[in-house]
Amino acid sequence: MNFMDIALEEAKRALYLKEVPIGAVVVKDGNIIGKGHNLRETLKNPLAHAEIIAIKEASETLGNWRLNGCSIYVTLEPCIMCAGAIVQSRISKLYIGTFDPNLGGCGSVVDLVNNKYINSNTEVHWLYDSKCSEILKDFFIDIRKESKSH
Amino acid sequence: MNFMDIALEEAKRALYLKEVPIGAVVVKDGNIIGKGHNLRETLKNPLAHAEIIAIKEASETLGNWRLNGCSIYVTLEPCIMCAGAIVQSRISKLYIGTFDPNLGGCGSVVDLVNNKYINSNTEVHWLYDSKCSEILKDFFIDIRKESKSH
Repeated sequence: MNFMDIALEEAKRALYLKEVPIGAVVVKDGNIIGKGHNLRETLKNPLAHAEIIAIKEASETLGNWRLNGCSIYVTLEPCIMCAGAIVQSRISKLYIGTFDPNLGGCGSVVDLVNNKYINSNTEVHWLYDSKCSEILKDFFIDIRKESKSH
Repeated sequence: MNFMDIALEEAKRALYLKEVPIGAVVVKDGNIIGKGHNLRETLKNPLAHAEIIAIKEASETLGNWRLNGCSIYVTLEPCIMCAGAIVQSRISKLYIGTFDPNLGGCGSVVDLVNNKYINSNTEVHWLYDSKCSEILKDFFIDIRKESKSH
């Protein structure tokens, strides 16, 4: 199982809780040191995005706020807050499952990671993984069906 | 004491811990519902900026991730992560003590709060409070003196 598939497993945990299904894992030297899934509604916390939870756990694992040499795998393009958190934590590589045309902070709406005005050490890799877009598409189709049936 | 002075008190708590002195308070209906100061080194957490801590506490106080109708007072212009967090939490008003020409996410480096491509409900107010810039200037002068004496 590759790391994006593990991030997708995290997204499925969010789905199970009726959260927007987004997952993230932070990896160092081939080992997972932080995982997270979106818990914004469950925790009633605007910061409880998958990436923020995974980064916090990774920092705890390493005992260091600097995550140089780490990679993060995220099923959906990070929003502006999470793109900022990835830059702030100095994560070296960001692997993105699919893009977010509405809120994406890595090029779709604004680009905070590869921006000449921002001191960023993060290299971005787009994976265009259809499983990452399909889980979101299916979630929003279901939400619309549910809201119509009420 | 006005709310920016209370944010400055928070900044002084960070200073006491030898953290970059930045403080934030979240206010609703004239009451403080969240406070925070920079604890990045102390907690070894890249996310432990004053704003993030104050927003988390405010959400806990209200039991809601939506902070519409709230104001946040921050001694220093929020970075890209914190500007993103303020937008994500739907805070209505952002009061900024002084600008950050290196990392500012509210106009100095990039503008995430008043950006036509980003769906933001946050109104920005610049206070240009010299106490907010002086505490930072003094901190960095001391840091340089210390590093020279070693």
